[in-house]
Amino acid sequence: MAAYKKVPHCIKTQQYTVDELSELFRIAKTYKETGESSSARGKIMTTLFYEPSTRTRLSFEAAMLRLGGRVISTDNAGQFSSAAKGETLEDTIRVVSEYCDVIVLRHTDEDAAERAINYSAHIPVINGGCGPNKDRPHYMHLAQHPTQALLDLYTIEEHFGYITSLRVAFVGDLKNGRTVRSLAYLLGKYHGVKIKFVAPGNLAVGDDIKDYLKRHNVEYQEYGNLASVIDQVDVVYMTRLQEERMTGSSELSASMDRIRLGTSYAMTEALAAKMHDNAIILHPLPRIDEISTAVDRMKQAKYFDQARNGLYVRMALLHQMFN
Amino acid sequence: MAAYKKVPHCIKTQQYTVDELSELFRIAKTYKETGESSSARGKIMTTLFYEPSTRTRLSFEAAMLRLGGRVISTDNAGQFSSAAKGETLEDTIRVVSEYCDVIVLRHTDEDAAERAINYSAHIPVINGGCGPNKDRPHYMHLAQHPTQALLDLYTIEEHFGYITSLRVAFVGDLKNGRTVRSLAYLLGKYHGVKIKFVAPGNLAVGDDIKDYLKRHNVEYQEYGNLASVIDQVDVVYMTRLQEERMTGSSELSASMDRIRLGTSYAMTEALAAKMHDNAIILHPLPRIDEISTAVDRMKQAKYFDQARNGLYVRMALLHQMFN
Amino acid sequence: MAAYKKVPHCIKTQQYTVDELSELFRIAKTYKETGESSSARGKIMTTLFYEPSTRTRLSFEAAMLRLGGRVISTDNAGQFSSAAKGETLEDTIRVVSEYCDVIVLRHTDEDAAERAINYSAHIPVINGGCGPNKDRPHYMHLAQHPTQALLDLYTIEEHFGYITSLRVAFVGDLKNGRTVRSLAYLLGKYHGVKIKFVAPGNLAVGDDIKDYLKRHNVEYQEYGNLASVIDQVDVVYMTRLQEERMTGSSELSASMDRIRLGTSYAMTEALAAKMHDNAIILHPLPRIDEISTAVDRMKQAKYFDQARNGLYVRMALLHQMFN
Repeated sequence: MAAYKKVPHCIKTQQYTVDELSELFRIAKTYKETGESSSARGKIMTTLFYEPSTRTRLSFEAAMLRLGGRVISTDNAGQFSSAAKGETLEDTIRVVSEYCDVIVLRHTDEDAAERAINYSAHIPVINGGCGPNKDRPHYMHLAQHPTQALLDLYTIEEHFGYITSLRVAFVGDLKNGRTVRSLAYLLGKYHGVKIKFVAPGNLAVGDDIKDYLKRHNVEYQEYGNLASVIDQVDVVYMTRLQEERMTGSSELSASMDRIRLGTSYAMTEALAAKMHDNAIILHPLPRIDEISTAVDRMKQAKYFDQARNGLYVRMALLHQMFN
Repeated sequence: MAAYKKVPHCIKTQQYTVDELSELFRIAKTYKETGESSSARGKIMTTLFYEPSTRTRLSFEAAMLRLGGRVISTDNAGQFSSAAKGETLEDTIRVVSEYCDVIVLRHTDEDAAERAINYSAHIPVINGGCGPNKDRPHYMHLAQHPTQALLDLYTIEEHFGYITSLRVAFVGDLKNGRTVRSLAYLLGKYHGVKIKFVAPGNLAVGDDIKDYLKRHNVEYQEYGNLASVIDQVDVVYMTRLQEERMTGSSELSASMDRIRLGTSYAMTEALAAKMHDNAIILHPLPRIDEISTAVDRMKQAKYFDQARNGLYVRMALLHQMFN
Repeated sequence: MAAYKKVPHCIKTQQYTVDELSELFRIAKTYKETGESSSARGKIMTTLFYEPSTRTRLSFEAAMLRLGGRVISTDNAGQFSSAAKGETLEDTIRVVSEYCDVIVLRHTDEDAAERAINYSAHIPVINGGCGPNKDRPHYMHLAQHPTQALLDLYTIEEHFGYITSLRVAFVGDLKNGRTVRSLAYLLGKYHGVKIKFVAPGNLAVGDDIKDYLKRHNVEYQEYGNLASVIDQVDVVYMTRLQEERMTGSSELSASMDRIRLGTSYAMTEALAAKMHDNAIILHPLPRIDEISTAVDRMKQAKYFDQARNGLYVRMALLHQMFN
């Protein structure tokens, strides 16, 4: 990852060492206490989003403003503008990088951020979520959302005080989720972490993630329902079930699948009550109905704290880029 | 309205006392003279618009910037993002309220702002226009646009020096307009105000407003055309006739209706000339053809001054929230 | 252009004298060296775009921020908001001009900026690209994008040190391009400039531009392919071929046309190699395939420098408006 040393891009979670993560989290913790700084004074961030994501964009923009920086923004670059006229991502990056000091890029192509760094002049690029583009299935293993995974890991570390040897369940659509990939890659860097994948067969976690975990000697197993692991883990990482991807061909089977999935892969108050006393529930949000709102009041529910931590982790990331 | 005392939300016009309105207008007047302050320094406002309204959004954003604050913004939260994926408003508010110091919410649901205040952590929510959602007719009486009504009332008070005993005509689509409701509720707080509603039968003012006025002993009457009241009022509050809501089932009747309505509910130079010497014409804008552009040059025309006052009233509102 | 003296609007390139251009470029050069100032401190710019143009909008916004100013923004005013409800541009300008200190207007109507200055109170309007609206063919000669032409001319002057007597080829769709018009008008102000228009017959440069050049005694000629002029010019100004406008009625002819056009009006490595040693290639971007990416590495390629200069020229323009 030497190339990332000269310009501090944030492209994929593999790029980080455990020491770098510790340092990032130390800064994030400071920002959680102080809330503000002037470390981005005079700097301009561009949020260049080819697909809209209000939450992620606002989180980055709030982070930049709280560092004393400024923002220029577009949240539908793909539909509306030069891209619609046929301009390549590379040309857009070359031009936009002249206007600003950092680009946050969200794109449907999995390798968009990786390609962008070759054209961004001397400014850093942050992957704000790239891929998956279902028209390019052989690129799917590159889909990542690294800043989401960084804030996930920060939240885990904040709660437990450590990552080593934690047992983490990933639940839901593990095939299409880029945050699952990004976080699994991070967890693989810590000793003794044990992972349990809980997903329906057609949404099972991809081979690329399993291969990575094997190479890093991370123990993992696959399960068919959440109930069977609920009392054996420290972290339950829920993800959104994207119905349109799960269902069979008929309306009937779609409906039946949904009921079955709702039972096997959703977090209810009853299930949450079976968790260990110190265990936590995370979710990258948005949540549809895979976590009952009744769970929100339980001490296990950490997904809104997690969203809040996104602000501080992104402040820390930007802070490092400018200092 | 005790709940609004702890966190100074702006949700509906009923919440204000006459004293609170006087204080708000005193601050607005100061901002109209000075133009700027630093009372929002270090603060971040989110404009969270589920339906776009360029004018209202830009007015709020300019107000926040002129107070030394900063803005993060989305103007199509409904179509583009988490909401399209099925996230509830409540979850969105919980997350976004962590990023900022005040939320301006515009939403198709009439009760959106009211619901939001239960999830906005400790920051204030401003109703930037909520409802009406025609798929939920039994909520229509909750549709409001309170900051529009505040700037309307400010403009009236600025011109006359008082509100008491003024005679106000509301003209046009009184059934669907949320600004009419919000302003009628405000006027009902002042002694001796007399209201004349001028609308076609199928767009008549709603019973909820009439009930409110009865409870507050406000005299009101209903009329079928503007000409019959034009020389009997101090304020003519014009509203946009939304054609698609007025017309019958055939093209023919639509066309005939439109001509008839144009004659009965539009402001012309000739009609304006019949107004009292000190009477004024207001309009929340956008205006289509219900006020002739020839009227713009007449001294009665106050609708552009009114729009300008929006900036100062919103500055005053934000000022109060941060001080 | 006396009217533009009182309020320093930027509407069309005819308005500038050679001396004014020199002064503008002098300031732009200073900003290229220093990068920042506080000359717009306390000022607010509105980017009021009725059609989206991410590049132009972000360039203006970055310029304003680098001058210490602030921005409120909409990039789809036409589709989304008051305009969709039927509000006139004039009403929108009257209201929005009350919120801010300068408006950058992009609109499909060719005369939009010209009309806007009558309603913008006392603040300047910048034409950020107006027209062409193909439904109003008799207005097409008013379509301009003056700030693009200013940055084009700045880039030429920066490279050569002068404009007088330069030989400039315009290539591609010269009928519909507003930047070609704006730049041709500027070039007509300098002695001895020679222009070569290279376009297919159905996309030939308009009579309005030719008439202007005749009145200003500018020598021009028309050609059918780029190869025949490539070694006789100092500047090749490439433009995007908008396929949908070039093709005949059948799929077959469309396809054949495209191949022919690709050969006659595209810049390849081989063609660029035939250019004079000091000659340059410009393009307003976005580029589709009318310039081979292989050309990007050649010293003749100046189109990305040109895009970068847009930032400094826009800073200079705004600087002049506030000082």
